[in-house]
Amino acid sequence: MNVRIAKNSGFCFGVKRAIKIALITSTENHEIVTLGPLIHNPQMVAKLEEEDIIKVDSIDQINKRPTIIRSHGVKKEILDELIKNDIEIINATCPYVSKTQDYAQSLSEDGYELIILGDRNHPEVEALRSYVEQEVTIVANADELGDKQFKKVGIISQTTRRVEDLQDLVTKLVTRCHEMRVINTICNATTIRQNSTLELAKESDVMIVIGGKNSSNTKMLAKICESLVKTHHIEIADEIDDKWFKHKQNIGLTAGASTPDWVIVEVYNKILECIGNINKIDNIEDIPGFKEE
Amino acid sequence: MNVRIAKNSGFCFGVKRAIKIALITSTENHEIVTLGPLIHNPQMVAKLEEEDIIKVDSIDQINKRPTIIRSHGVKKEILDELIKNDIEIINATCPYVSKTQDYAQSLSEDGYELIILGDRNHPEVEALRSYVEQEVTIVANADELGDKQFKKVGIISQTTRRVEDLQDLVTKLVTRCHEMRVINTICNATTIRQNSTLELAKESDVMIVIGGKNSSNTKMLAKICESLVKTHHIEIADEIDDKWFKHKQNIGLTAGASTPDWVIVEVYNKILECIGNINKIDNIEDIPGFKEE
Repeated sequence: MNVRIAKNSGFCFGVKRAIKIALITSTENHEIVTLGPLIHNPQMVAKLEEEDIIKVDSIDQINKRPTIIRSHGVKKEILDELIKNDIEIINATCPYVSKTQDYAQSLSEDGYELIILGDRNHPEVEALRSYVEQEVTIVANADELGDKQFKKVGIISQTTRRVEDLQDLVTKLVTRCHEMRVINTICNATTIRQNSTLELAKESDVMIVIGGKNSSNTKMLAKICESLVKTHHIEIADEIDDKWFKHKQNIGLTAGASTPDWVIVEVYNKILECIGNINKIDNIEDIPGFKEE
Repeated sequence: MNVRIAKNSGFCFGVKRAIKIALITSTENHEIVTLGPLIHNPQMVAKLEEEDIIKVDSIDQINKRPTIIRSHGVKKEILDELIKNDIEIINATCPYVSKTQDYAQSLSEDGYELIILGDRNHPEVEALRSYVEQEVTIVANADELGDKQFKKVGIISQTTRRVEDLQDLVTKLVTRCHEMRVINTICNATTIRQNSTLELAKESDVMIVIGGKNSSNTKMLAKICESLVKTHHIEIADEIDDKWFKHKQNIGLTAGASTPDWVIVEVYNKILECIGNINKIDNIEDIPGFKEE
């Protein structure tokens, strides 16, 4: 039996940056809040609470404390209300997400009807949508377009979608509109991680995907793996069942962009235990296959 | 045995318009010239010569006669030279082709690197290309892109290409550029004719494609048919060999956008003769399956 991890697993640039901003801000303040979870990982959010970085779910709960804007961004109207209420804002929105908001706004201002590839209930998409005053079409895939026809259409994507889904959407739209302007806003780190995960899944008998159950990019990794091999999406090591590894030779691991290294290490050690390997590791770098590109 | 014609075969709007413009102009002038063939059909070009509408191949041969710009358009520098030489210009460029020239120019002016889907040696593409001062990439299909990467790319198509080829190109470019602006300049009549031809080819044992050997849209019809069934691309009835119809039950006919009705009727009658049918028709409307949408 061997256990390997997909290259480029774990924290991405935007998540690292948001956590760093939160920790620096907390050293300068008694207590700060994040409006919604800073990142989509309950374990990391719990850890931040130990540092007095408290998650609140609405503006009413802020009580004038300095407020960090989560990595996924927030709706424009919420930002406006924070400013109106004179609340100190620390913006930890991923720069790639902010850029996508700018594109949404400028496409709309240039007269393009906007289509967003994404999950309409995800905070990133809810925020993105709020930057456009006109009607917006949000689809999770090309099929959801139905028979809709457009004249002049602008297309952007939630940063964590699969590039293949954007390609399908664009292909369909060629015959559905006169003109389209496509800005590929899928984060490059997302694409690279998905490709590394796909490669490992092809060589594995079972895949363990680690990350928040509310994390869009982690769910996408699970979806990619499921199309190839038996897959389990977990948040923490305790969820592991040793039956999963019976008669399995190649065990593959991958983790979403908001999954902390220590959670990945715990999962790896737990798998070793399940398969009767007495070794233990302390660092993610020691997991076979680990590599950041 | 039955012989049927694909719906929407023969003259398109742009060809009809060009011929009409030429004929009206010729009634008002002793002799007029077209710079290059007015349309890509040698039989029609010969017929126009009988009306003193003479094809010349270079500006030197014009001799101050009123000059018709062919349906495919001409290079900008040629137009400029005609104006400089004070030659009377009658522009019979297909309005859809002119529109594509405008799009090429405006995409380039807006800072988009231009990609044209088309045949680099076709007069329409040569003319189109001349409206852009910057470097232009011309590809006949997505494969010809090679490994090229782009930042901000504008995509247009020769009006007679297959929409599937534009879709392939766009799909490939999603991962090759940050932003793309696609204007679907494929003529709708071309797409409709291709689809009708495809449908008939599926139900036929042999396909006869009628039209100029230099006609881009006719060659595309032949390509579509060849992928499904034995196909012969001819210009005139005399090229027909009765062996083609041996043991064939369903014979399909289609014709390019520049193929005159009388040529199609001659071909149909010749096929009837080959298969031992003594009937004859006079009008294209009498061919089974004929319909304009």
